[in-house]
Parts: sequence; C-alpha cells; structure tokens
Amino acid sequence: MIKRKTAMNKQMVQEKISARPYKGARDFYPEDMRIRNYIFDVWRKICNRYGFEEYDFPIMEPFEIFAAKTGEEIVNEQMFTLKDRAGRRLAIRPELTPGTVRLLAQRYNEIAKPIKWFMIGNNWRAEKPQKGRGREFYQLEMNVFGIEGVEADFEIFSAMIDIMKEFGAKKNMFKIYYNDRRLIRALLNDSLKLKGDTQIRVRRIMDKRAKISKGEFFNSLYEFDLSNSQAEKIEKFLTSSLNSIANVIPEKILKRNPGYQAMLELIEMLETNDLAKYCEFNPAIIRGFDYSDGLVYEIFDTDPKNNRSMFGGERFDKLINIFGDYDLAATGFAMGDYTLLEFLRNWKLLPTLSTETKVLVTVFEEKLSQNSFKLTQDLRSEGINAELYLEAVKLEKQLKYADRKGIPFVIVQGPDEAKKGTVQLKDMKSKTQKEVTPQEAVQKLMQ
Amino acid sequence: MIKRKTAMNKQMVQEKISARPYKGARDFYPEDMRIRNYIFDVWRKICNRYGFEEYDFPIMEPFEIFAAKTGEEIVNEQMFTLKDRAGRRLAIRPELTPGTVRLLAQRYNEIAKPIKWFMIGNNWRAEKPQKGRGREFYQLEMNVFGIEGVEADFEIFSAMIDIMKEFGAKKNMFKIYYNDRRLIRALLNDSLKLKGDTQIRVRRIMDKRAKISKGEFFNSLYEFDLSNSQAEKIEKFLTSSLNSIANVIPEKILKRNPGYQAMLELIEMLETNDLAKYCEFNPAIIRGFDYSDGLVYEIFDTDPKNNRSMFGGERFDKLINIFGDYDLAATGFAMGDYTLLEFLRNWKLLPTLSTETKVLVTVFEEKLSQNSFKLTQDLRSEGINAELYLEAVKLEKQLKYADRKGIPFVIVQGPDEAKKGTVQLKDMKSKTQKEVTPQEAVQKLMQ
Repeated sequence: MIKRKTAMNKQMVQEKISARPYKGARDFYPEDMRIRNYIFDVWRKICNRYGFEEYDFPIMEPFEIFAAKTGEEIVNEQMFTLKDRAGRRLAIRPELTPGTVRLLAQRYNEIAKPIKWFMIGNNWRAEKPQKGRGREFYQLEMNVFGIEGVEADFEIFSAMIDIMKEFGAKKNMFKIYYNDRRLIRALLNDSLKLKGDTQIRVRRIMDKRAKISKGEFFNSLYEFDLSNSQAEKIEKFLTSSLNSIANVIPEKILKRNPGYQAMLELIEMLETNDLAKYCEFNPAIIRGFDYSDGLVYEIFDTDPKNNRSMFGGERFDKLINIFGDYDLAATGFAMGDYTLLEFLRNWKLLPTLSTETKVLVTVFEEKLSQNSFKLTQDLRSEGINAELYLEAVKLEKQLKYADRKGIPFVIVQGPDEAKKGTVQLKDMKSKTQKEVTPQEAVQKLMQ
Repeated sequence: MIKRKTAMNKQMVQEKISARPYKGARDFYPEDMRIRNYIFDVWRKICNRYGFEEYDFPIMEPFEIFAAKTGEEIVNEQMFTLKDRAGRRLAIRPELTPGTVRLLAQRYNEIAKPIKWFMIGNNWRAEKPQKGRGREFYQLEMNVFGIEGVEADFEIFSAMIDIMKEFGAKKNMFKIYYNDRRLIRALLNDSLKLKGDTQIRVRRIMDKRAKISKGEFFNSLYEFDLSNSQAEKIEKFLTSSLNSIANVIPEKILKRNPGYQAMLELIEMLETNDLAKYCEFNPAIIRGFDYSDGLVYEIFDTDPKNNRSMFGGERFDKLINIFGDYDLAATGFAMGDYTLLEFLRNWKLLPTLSTETKVLVTVFEEKLSQNSFKLTQDLRSEGINAELYLEAVKLEKQLKYADRKGIPFVIVQGPDEAKKGTVQLKDMKSKTQKEVTPQEAVQKLMQ
C-alpha cells in the first residue's frame, strides 16, 4: 500500500510543469532587471547624445531576409524557424541588421538621408549555452546610412568609445581593432589571384585562424589547392602591421586599394581627435557576415584573463540590395548585453543599483489602514515613489521587508501618532527616526 | 527579343525579397518609436511610483505553461509554436501572466512577500489583423502577489486609474467594470445547480453574450440542456445591478458568497478614497482565461463611437499550482499598447512628441569639417544631444534636413566665422540667428 501511494505521488509531482525557463534563455528578476535597465539607459543616452533616432521592428521576420546574407552557420545551425498557419516561413531574428535595412528599403524614398538610427532589441540563436553566451541576447544596433565617406565610420568609432567611457571603461581596458574586407580582397584576389568561390572559403578559414594551430590552418588552405607559399603569405598577412602589409601585398595594389586608403584616412581623423589611442589596425579581423564589404571592426576586452572580442561592426553598403536596386551606404555595430556585462563585472565597473522605491508606508493595524492608504496617495501625487505594505502584519515583518528590498525610508503611524496626526519617518540607513506631520514627511522625501 | 528581356527583368525583380514586415506585425519608425517610448515611460513611471519592481522573461517559453490554463481559443488557434533542434516544444508567448507566475514558482521560497511586480513585454497571437489589433502587441503586466485581501485589488484599481490619469484621461472617458467569478459560480453552481463541465461552457457563452442576439444566446444554452427559465435567469443576471442581483441569486447564497462580499468591501474602499466614480459593477464581465478565479475587471472606453473593452485583469490565486503545490494569492491586469493608443488618439490625448536631438552641427565645407567635429564633441561632452551632419553638402540641404527632423537649433560655421573663432547659432523656430563663440553656444544650448 505504502509503495503504491509513493508511486502515485511521484506521478502527480511529475505532472506539474517545470518552472525553469527554456534552455539558454534568461529570466530577469528585479535585481537582474535593474542591471539590464542600467545598460539600456546608457546605450540610449549616448545614442541620443549623438543625435541618433530610435526605431524597432518585430522579433519574427520573414525567413528569407536572413537566408540571403546572414551567413551559413547562423542560418543553418542556429536560427529558430517556424511556419504560421497559412504556411508562411518565419524566423526569430538572430541579428538586427537585415531587419534594419528592410525598414529602410520599405521607405527608401521617404526617409531624409543621411540616416542615423539605433535600436535595442533581442535576438535568438540556438547556440550551446555557455558562460557569457545564451540563446537569447540583447543588442544595441547603431548605424549611419547614406554616407560613403569614412566620416561615418569615424562617427561610429567615436560613439563606441563614448559608450564604453560612459560605462566607466578606461583606455587600457578595451581596444577597437579594425581591418577592411577590401584589403583582404587585395590579398586573395589581386595578389594571390584566387577564384571567387575559393576567396570566400579562404576568408572563412582566415576568420577561424585564432582558434586553430598553424598546421591545421595550412591543411585547411591546402584543401582549396593553395600552394605553401600562398599559405605562408596569408599567414604573414594576418600578423602584419599597416606598415609591414606592403611586404605581403605589392605597393601598387595597396595604392589603388580603397580599403587601404580608407583606413589611412580614418587613422588621420582618429589621431586629430585624440581617439587613436583606443584603436589599432589588425588584419586578423575578418567578421563572419556575408554582407561585410568594407571596413570591419571588433572591440576587445584587453584583460589577459578575458582577452576576447566583445562586439563588432562593419560597412555593409550592399546589404540593402537583397530588397531591390537601392543605393545606400551603411556602417555600424551591434553590441551585445551578455559580453558587455561580463566586461563590466570583470573590471568591477558595474555600479550598485538600488530600488527605485523611496519609501515604504506600513500599516500598523487594520483600523489605521485608511490613514496609510491616504498618506501613500499623497506621497505618490507629489511624485514620490511610495510602496504601501497593504496588510496589517507585525511591524517588525514590514520593517524587515523594507530592509531586504533596500527601501531607504519607512513611515509608521501607530495609535499615538494617529491621535496627534503625526507619523514616524524612519531612515533605514542611519537607523534614526523622527516624528513629523505627514506634510513634513512629504517635504523631507521630496528632497 | 524585347519580350524575352521583359520577362527576364520581371523574374529578377521577383527574386528580390519583400521589404514588408510579417503580416500583422509592426515596424516602429522613429516617429512611431517616440509614441511607444512615451507610452512605456508613463507605464514605468506610475509602476515605480507605486513601488512596484520591474522584471522580464523570455518571449519563447515551454509550450506547456500556456497549454495548461491560457484558454482554448488562444492556445489552439492563435499561438505561434515551434520545435527546437532537440525536439523541445516551444511557444511564442501570447500573454504575460503564466510566465510571470513561473518566475515566482521558480524562486518561491526566496522572494520576500508580498510581491509587487510589473513588466512591459510583447506577445504574439495569430489573430486576423484589424484596426486596433495586430499579431504582435505590447502589454504592461502589473500584479500584487501574496495578499488575499481586497486591499491588493484596491491597490491595482488605484494604479489603473492613476495610469489613465497620467495619460490625461478624465473620468468621463473610461470606466472600470468589475465582477467576480465566484458570483458567477453562485449563479451556475449554487443557484442553477449545473454540472461542473457545463458551468465552464455556459460561462464561455455568457462571455460572448454582447456579441450575439438573445435568440442565439438562448439556443446556445439549450444545447447544454438548460431550461428556458434557467436561460432567463442567466440573461437577467447579466443585466443586474449589485442591488437587483438578489432577484436572481437568493439572498442566503449571496451572504455566504465570498465574491459578493469582496465586492462590497472593495466598493467601500473605493468610495472612501474617492475612486468609486471610476468604477461600476457589471455582471457581464466574465474574462476568457481559465485561471480567473475571483474578482474580474475590464476597462472600457466610454466614447459611444468606440465603446469597448480596452484591457482587463483578474484574481488568479491558483494559477501558480500548474507548477506545484504553492500558495500565492494573485491579482493584476495587463494593458495593451494597441487599444491604449487608439484610446489616446480618439480622445486627442497624445502629446506632440519631438526629437530628442537639440542641435544639428553643419559642415560648411570639407576643410572646416574638423572644427565641426570638435564642436560637436564639446557639446556632447556637456550632455547636449548634438547631431553632426558628417558631409559638406550644400548648407541649404543641411538646414532643410534639420527642419524636416524638427531639430530646434542649428550651428553653422563658414570661413568668416572660422577666422573669428565664432559660430552662427540658428533658432529654427523663431528663424533667428546669433553670432556667438562656441562656448557661448554650449552655454545657450545647456539652458
């Protein structure tokens, strides 16, 4: 009998639904939400500071817009897809750039150019959840459209630096590494004379260089019939400085290479504006998106213990052409919340974030509750964030609750105070209290 | 030949991807986003004012949590579902309440009670897109947990009213209609003595009463073997006042009905606090969710031209039990952005929302661009939202751009000003300009 009952109980328990979120997705409890709001507020503040305008679009998008240019790995292995009841193929967005360009294509003739836009939105990718990486993540996407010149890239670099500085980052903590896809083309096409298809595949292998050994790297290149001297040239390219690149790519090719020239221009602007100290040329920056077609950049955490790419961006002048024959230069970056948070924690830059609530109004006993209700509404109508406890439980419990939530002030009105028409205003930090009139309490809390 | 070429062009055009969003989903261009931010800001402001804490959870949730209690129509006909690569069944959330309760179940023992939480999040339902209703919509979800007494419902009513007032709504524009599921139970169970299953079905038909004729309504009830006199009683119930309800449900049943008693208590509190004028008992308020188990309420636009439910809420004390044997009283509402926006437009309550950008710094000519860059950075470092035009196109074009975007000030520096170290500060509204030093411009714009 006992055995059977246990089995039945077990079954009943199993019928309950798990309270955990979907694998790799995050719940934001109030303490997590404060951090997220802090990050979003800084993002929004600096983007507004730069005169960029906020936009947004749906998290579910037609499948095709990612299939076109987002890149094999994301589309085939990581994207969440579904069909609606009418058979339309949909994707949960894995990134914000194609949707952004879709909006511009949709109103191409109406929107005043140049366009400076930002958005904050979430993406989903079915990656293996790991430290600093989940299946759902938020990104700030910030772009300049309609400006071909390197001024747009400079503005974006400047904004990235100001965002990092607003989070409290110092120049020794991060570095913007940049390169240009057209320089890679100068190497693979103009110098090594590889075929078009092979160029794309070799570029993808180059993007993985940091994660594999030299031997593995060379073997991968041999698979595409590259000679040993070609492989050596690529290896040498990946570790060149902007000066020594001429040892790999002939000077005359460099001279007419728009990517190389754009970087020289950018460097001059960075130097003039004292931003060069945050930036460095690095030919190993490749980026994985098929739509990158000019300057590419990635921002690294410089801490040797956490030395990795945090976020990146690129030129993507041609991406809009998946929607039609439009002409719209584009450059910008997408900054993820996961890696940023790890950076902030790692460098101890995250501030202490306390509750927005200024005061808890307690309910001393049932028959005094109307006084508490009234006082709370008076506080609120003066713009003070005031929580009402709502139940006349033991005062000690109510004070403990305020303490646990970090609410800085508590108001108590017992029968004695009620008779006199006063309240006790408790400062939870200094552990002091003062008997005041409700009006005085409002005045004090408004300071 | 010509024919063939046309056909080919057509094919090429067709290969381009549509730039429209998925059916029923919305793009938020900057002018739309300003409105959304305004709505969210008001929501967040009043929730913080009430001492509620913000949280969030993923838009993709395990399928089961909605299948349990969200209601047949939404789950079977409107919910977007998918499977991940490991075969897990997922749903794009159609509402925010089950996920909210999931978070509480997950940390049931750790969270200090009572719990006052709010979130702003989007939902998806595959409804037929129509005016004031789309497939993607945002909601404010605001709840009190852990308080059985009607004080919690009163707090929620008070918050709903303050939110409406913060949007500029007057008492003649909206009304909170309330009812109690337990009163419906008193009618169907205690008075009419219907079977459990039949009660649920009859309740669903009652919920649709306003949309069908009396004849259709009665015929639907006859299908469940209700007599004509039973149907008449239900019809009479649906149009009763709180006083005349005793003509339908015997006094002795009402006296021991906790729903009826709770409403009497609530009314007293509303009257004492001068909120009764916003609220009215209405037995036709039923709500469609299977988890509603006490007070139910819906907020109506009172405009005869748009007289309909805008949003609603309820008691859902037992919903948490889908996750386990927890004990957690719950009450709160979810307010959608679509219907709210229609309400605000209808009553002309939407304010004019202008750009966050304070000033546009123009680039007069290429060789003066560095001055513009520098000045813009100086403005930004003083906290002024400043856009830099980035290109030395015709000044007229730059001024037109500022005008079109509604940027209130423009700074111009031509060669003459550059020589003197001054700039022209243009006030776009008054169409005046003043020659000042860059420092004076900063000072002026900081005001």
